[in-house]
Amino acid sequence: MTRRRRTHRIRASAGEPKRSRRAIPDRYDFDLMPPVTTPIAFTSEEIDAVAFDADGLVPAIVQEQGTNQVLMVAWMNRDALERTLQTGRTWFWSRSRREYWCKGETSGDRQYVRAGYYDCDMDVLLFVVEQEGRGACHTGERSCFFRAFGSGATPGHV
Amino acid sequence: MTRRRRTHRIRASAGEPKRSRRAIPDRYDFDLMPPVTTPIAFTSEEIDAVAFDADGLVPAIVQEQGTNQVLMVAWMNRDALERTLQTGRTWFWSRSRREYWCKGETSGDRQYVRAGYYDCDMDVLLFVVEQEGRGACHTGERSCFFRAFGSGATPGHV
Repeated sequence: MTRRRRTHRIRASAGEPKRSRRAIPDRYDFDLMPPVTTPIAFTSEEIDAVAFDADGLVPAIVQEQGTNQVLMVAWMNRDALERTLQTGRTWFWSRSRREYWCKGETSGDRQYVRAGYYDCDMDVLLFVVEQEGRGACHTGERSCFFRAFGSGATPGHV
Repeated sequence: MTRRRRTHRIRASAGEPKRSRRAIPDRYDFDLMPPVTTPIAFTSEEIDAVAFDADGLVPAIVQEQGTNQVLMVAWMNRDALERTLQTGRTWFWSRSRREYWCKGETSGDRQYVRAGYYDCDMDVLLFVVEQEGRGACHTGERSCFFRAFGSGATPGHV
């Protein structure tokens, strides 16, 4: 039980309320259950209508369900998009490594897709997810957008 | 007063609670005051560190303050980014029209920037705004992401 609680502990970042995960005896602890993977329905017309760029890519925003916090942005090609909708986990195409990656497969910080949207000109996607683990950013921050302009944070690629 | 109320009326979209804008006599109606434009502090080091792409552009997500709803995504070059931070209004570079545009200047659906963020690899920006008028999308929807995969909505550029 202790191990599972550690796995699902959420790192509280600045300004975010700390979530208490204390187990309550004699009560079924839904909070400690792992998230459920659910495929997202789609049609081939929807996939065909996505305006992939010259490199066959489209930016995908990942937003946290409930808080609506923007967690990260990464790129999808047609295959990554189909994998995401079919598996209910976020799949991306890494432009630098030139390979597919499923978010959280190495870090454990998995994303369980609850809904997917396309914008009015169909060149940006938005996925609402349940974020497992410590968060979406490789730095350990919950969101990749943890530095504000004028905040005194050190800019640069981290 | 009637004219100003009409200007600031917010279009309720599906699933969004209707905001009542009824004036209360003998009470100062803060709700009807136009949003305040506030410049966002920034340093030249922050601007220099932004990873603009080969075309000198970076995608900018616009998110609504309070609801955290993702409203739209558009592109900024260095100059559009500086204008946005300096003026406190969202400025973009139109790739199709090859010109600067300030959101809402023709439609009246202005965006008042309250904070700006850059992500961990500095190639995506996020702006939290107060959205004036009916919303961010040219279709009249509050958000450009109004169609979900599998929802039965008609896909395609609108």
